[in-house]
Amino acid sequence: MNKNNPGEINLETFSCPIPFAHNEKIMLGHGSGGKMTHDLINRLFLYYFNNSSKEITTNDASVLSTTALRFAMCTDCHVVSPIFFPGGDLGRLAVCGTVNDLAMVGAKPLYLTAGFILEEGLNVSVLEKVVQSMQNAAIEAGIKIVAGDTKVVQKGKADQIFITTTGYGEIPDDVHISGDNAQPGDVVIISGSMGDHGIAVLTARGELGLEADIVSDVAPLHDLVANMLSMTKNIHVLRDPTRGGLATSLNEIAIQSKVGIILHEEKIPVKPAVRATCDLLGFNPLYIANEGKVIVIAPSEVSELLLSVMRAHPYGKDAEIIGDVLEEPKERVLSRNPIGSTQVLDMLSGEILPRIC
Amino acid sequence: MNKNNPGEINLETFSCPIPFAHNEKIMLGHGSGGKMTHDLINRLFLYYFNNSSKEITTNDASVLSTTALRFAMCTDCHVVSPIFFPGGDLGRLAVCGTVNDLAMVGAKPLYLTAGFILEEGLNVSVLEKVVQSMQNAAIEAGIKIVAGDTKVVQKGKADQIFITTTGYGEIPDDVHISGDNAQPGDVVIISGSMGDHGIAVLTARGELGLEADIVSDVAPLHDLVANMLSMTKNIHVLRDPTRGGLATSLNEIAIQSKVGIILHEEKIPVKPAVRATCDLLGFNPLYIANEGKVIVIAPSEVSELLLSVMRAHPYGKDAEIIGDVLEEPKERVLSRNPIGSTQVLDMLSGEILPRIC
Repeated sequence: MNKNNPGEINLETFSCPIPFAHNEKIMLGHGSGGKMTHDLINRLFLYYFNNSSKEITTNDASVLSTTALRFAMCTDCHVVSPIFFPGGDLGRLAVCGTVNDLAMVGAKPLYLTAGFILEEGLNVSVLEKVVQSMQNAAIEAGIKIVAGDTKVVQKGKADQIFITTTGYGEIPDDVHISGDNAQPGDVVIISGSMGDHGIAVLTARGELGLEADIVSDVAPLHDLVANMLSMTKNIHVLRDPTRGGLATSLNEIAIQSKVGIILHEEKIPVKPAVRATCDLLGFNPLYIANEGKVIVIAPSEVSELLLSVMRAHPYGKDAEIIGDVLEEPKERVLSRNPIGSTQVLDMLSGEILPRIC
Repeated sequence: MNKNNPGEINLETFSCPIPFAHNEKIMLGHGSGGKMTHDLINRLFLYYFNNSSKEITTNDASVLSTTALRFAMCTDCHVVSPIFFPGGDLGRLAVCGTVNDLAMVGAKPLYLTAGFILEEGLNVSVLEKVVQSMQNAAIEAGIKIVAGDTKVVQKGKADQIFITTTGYGEIPDDVHISGDNAQPGDVVIISGSMGDHGIAVLTARGELGLEADIVSDVAPLHDLVANMLSMTKNIHVLRDPTRGGLATSLNEIAIQSKVGIILHEEKIPVKPAVRATCDLLGFNPLYIANEGKVIVIAPSEVSELLLSVMRAHPYGKDAEIIGDVLEEPKERVLSRNPIGSTQVLDMLSGEILPRIC
């Protein structure tokens, strides 16, 4: 076991160097700022998040170095229920969600902060699994967890664990990616199948009696994006279609860029089990959350190049060109089916799957 | 009313340009990522947090510029109950807590992100007051709110509003402040009275039938710290004694710096009403949270200079030299009373006042 490489830790057998007792619970004192807080920080958070360059300290803030001229910041709260689901868990989601938001402006993810709101009575072993998973995801994403905070609220005033992560990433000089950059004539590419995450979390709840073999796609997309940018900087928009799904994300882009977008329905990858579950429940998979997929909008002359780079990456192997950016109808997303009929795809109204991320 | 200067907004009468209906409630759909989320973002968050330089966008991450070589990052979750208390509220606390953590390493606070976890059924007007208060505090602190996220959980799965803020600040080249820098021979200065925040929140709960006239000290300390650093860079440690109070913060510093600290008990400012309430409840004010005070540890030759700079600032007017750093006993904090008897001041054990910040 190597302290500097917790990525190799076996989640089933590993425990902290001074292990917490079996069934030890989080108490209000763990959020007091006193001895119990320091104990939790030292035995759990610092142990897992420590990294060789010692950015994480017990000071009020971490001091970091940079030579970049432009950087990105983003933040995401994570309240997914249940905490563990096929293909991922709250910890992996909390890291990947923020890493992906950085990647969506072309930033190289470097530093992450993590704020934990814990419910009194939570099993420390549950927190430990989530923290281990965060560290594993951080290693995969090449991001360092540099600062954190923990608060504990009374039993019944939160639901187990909420994690808010904030990311810092540096942007190369010649990268200019933004939701308002889509141009008529651009094509729309998606990196893989739609709806896997939302349906995986939904089936993990067990409320519907469904037993579909659906796994969340939660994954860090920084490497896929870096590969694309290494081939061409001529990318106008990147966005990960999380809450609200592909349809909502494309509406956001259409509004920001004041363009129309038309999708070729039959080109959009949806796994059969996801489609079957959606059909059963009356959901449209284009409104279901993804956590490891990226929408790419780029000039048509680079589309085949981007498609080949994406398909060569494990997180982009099912990439497809799925649509076009048009001058009109402005701020609208249309979907055309194989027999040529066209419908408007609006933003998500209301809420179909709460607490999916 | 000036959209670019929400600092002038009257909290009692102001409402959004497209006001929310009286008694309108937060629904799960406000966290869906779809239309209702965009409505909340546009009418509430973007309206209040928008700033002239447009750092806040509807992209996944905000793109920011820098020429600094060193910066600081920190994060804090805020779960205070009640949300509104004498002298402040959750919003002011969420900004000041993070601004102060940046100031404690000598950083100039520049950018803030804010993650909101909302309970279904929350009155939008409560959220609006908190958001206005955040913006007012951000203006006072000279920090820009550049990115945010909102999640909504079912009624009973959170307690109204939790806010996690993350700060970014730049550190001047010649500033090196850290909890492990305290040196034997240094003096310990405190910027003002101890325990005001914790006791103000406690009495606001109304559970104890107390009606003490105690106001929270919650305030941004960046300007006080900047004034001190403009006079001398010869400051070894800064720390704001929040959760766990002065005693716990000094223990942290004694451990980090491997020194002893002795306090002159009669020098430590405590307001009579705070002392009376503490006496009544059996609390020691040195363990009660502050949100607008700073511990300064610096060489004795600059102590009078620092004291005069601090006393000239509204947030440091009651500053006092309260102790000395010693070679021994290492990693211990002692308190000596006027008749010369000395006791060990340990870190806070357990929890005396949950959800104070």
